[in-house]
Amino acid sequence: MSELDVIAIGNALVDVLAHSDDSFLASRGIPKGSMQLIDATAAERLYAEMGAAVEVSGGSAANTVAGIASLGGRAGFIGKVHADQLGDIFAHDIRALGVEFTTAPARNGRPTGRCLILVTPDAQRTMQTFLGVAGEVSPDDVDPSQIKRAQVTYFEGYLFDAAPAKAAYIKAAQVAHEAGRKVSLSLSDKFCVDRHRAEFLDLVHGHIDVLFANELEIMALYEAPDFGAAVSAVRGKCDIAVLTRSEKGAVIITPHDTLEIPAHPVARVVDTTGAGDLFAAGFLYGYTRGKPLAECGRVAAICASEIISHFGARPEAKLAELVR
Amino acid sequence: MSELDVIAIGNALVDVLAHSDDSFLASRGIPKGSMQLIDATAAERLYAEMGAAVEVSGGSAANTVAGIASLGGRAGFIGKVHADQLGDIFAHDIRALGVEFTTAPARNGRPTGRCLILVTPDAQRTMQTFLGVAGEVSPDDVDPSQIKRAQVTYFEGYLFDAAPAKAAYIKAAQVAHEAGRKVSLSLSDKFCVDRHRAEFLDLVHGHIDVLFANELEIMALYEAPDFGAAVSAVRGKCDIAVLTRSEKGAVIITPHDTLEIPAHPVARVVDTTGAGDLFAAGFLYGYTRGKPLAECGRVAAICASEIISHFGARPEAKLAELVR
Repeated sequence: MSELDVIAIGNALVDVLAHSDDSFLASRGIPKGSMQLIDATAAERLYAEMGAAVEVSGGSAANTVAGIASLGGRAGFIGKVHADQLGDIFAHDIRALGVEFTTAPARNGRPTGRCLILVTPDAQRTMQTFLGVAGEVSPDDVDPSQIKRAQVTYFEGYLFDAAPAKAAYIKAAQVAHEAGRKVSLSLSDKFCVDRHRAEFLDLVHGHIDVLFANELEIMALYEAPDFGAAVSAVRGKCDIAVLTRSEKGAVIITPHDTLEIPAHPVARVVDTTGAGDLFAAGFLYGYTRGKPLAECGRVAAICASEIISHFGARPEAKLAELVR
Repeated sequence: MSELDVIAIGNALVDVLAHSDDSFLASRGIPKGSMQLIDATAAERLYAEMGAAVEVSGGSAANTVAGIASLGGRAGFIGKVHADQLGDIFAHDIRALGVEFTTAPARNGRPTGRCLILVTPDAQRTMQTFLGVAGEVSPDDVDPSQIKRAQVTYFEGYLFDAAPAKAAYIKAAQVAHEAGRKVSLSLSDKFCVDRHRAEFLDLVHGHIDVLFANELEIMALYEAPDFGAAVSAVRGKCDIAVLTRSEKGAVIITPHDTLEIPAHPVARVVDTTGAGDLFAAGFLYGYTRGKPLAECGRVAAICASEIISHFGARPEAKLAELVR
């Protein structure tokens, strides 16, 4: 089997995207811009109330490896679907992009997970996720030989919730490091960080070489009063911290340096779903090719700008051509 | 129960849209721009080979009533889904638009149908349809009281294939006419017309008040050597024939008059899927409000221009606002 640039472990989800207005969120007490986990009953109720939708494969880390494949990189994905129609859609889409995806689908139990995404007129996305079988990733799903083949093993914070999934991350990180490979994590969401702060700190400080976070997430991790304090707190805790700041661009923090990456201009922001996922894709694509960090950041910003210019979190344009 | 502007009978399908290049079609012998029916095995094979996709509810007549609802009209739909995930998607989306959809889902037998749509760089769409349970519409699915409540009963040519579906159309047309209502048909596709020409002629001449067709379809129906000959052949055979000609606009043929409708300008044609369906939506919306035919044509052209400016055959913009 050939080398991989990145193997990701994450939630295998199909996104269900619909337009919504602010009052729809407010009247249901849904915090705009956040991700919340909901159960099957709540998902059914919300789906019945929301508008006509479009289905696109999603999942944060899965979007990242989809982006790496679209850039021309070699990527793999570990995640759980059910052997149902949505599971077929997820598996088809990620394989059609050339991503190696061999996790066995579940034949009974919960259905394939889905993320109900409400996009408000300001292009913000608010996510209500019914995980279904996606959250049931366990150490058994981690094949050490596949991890060893990848330069970087990448995790999303969203899946760091149930004990078996946490154990899967630790197993994969240990295998990767023993093989001299790098390990990367996106914090994913402030609420995830708040819920598992101590364990996230152990994970970041004990296992992560390249950390991705936005402003709110890194401040939540260190309970920092402002962004500057969060930057000071994270510096030196991992090789590289990539901190995204929406339209203000991003900051790359290494033990001794700080590098500012400007945002790439976008004609019209349509839907911010997947911006962070694709930023990570571009960065890791450059990183696994040994590019200077400024170049990694430039590719990251271009990838993020493509994904926010349309509905959905999977690239519509061939990213390799955009970056060239 | 309230009055309906239009009740449609058609294939309940979920569209699976992916970008494709011309060589992908050519190497598989798929005629570009056409719709072909394929079986489950062929659908599975093609799906495995095509690129990452987006799922959007579709079905020709279903797209038309979705358009009418988006314009502010009152519409109903009769069509068969299975009680599976794709069936849930279809039912959710059409109801979320305010369309009355009460056909009972099948609990066993074939799955919900899907239409694999390959969009080439010239924005043309080529459709390979696995009908699944969609083609199993029968006279039992036609509720006479619902037909009587609608000003217009609308059929798509695509479903005019299996004997029970043909019988369902005849039943609905008879109920509608006995109630003093109008009946409308879209010929849908040249290959459908070629396959069932004699029966299509009986249907059009015996039951249809408002006929929709594009150039190729109307020429196929009358085996006419050119468009002018087809116009002469159809004139007087039904109250109104609405003949669409892509970027050349449309021609409305009544027994004594011919009305030219210019195409509505589009900044960039992205995907022509649903152009005819939405043209019919705009026309029937005006028609059921008693508007002059020129105004019906104007609304039709605006609706068609919206749908070809993005991926998928369901309106993204609120059509009522575009038309205003």
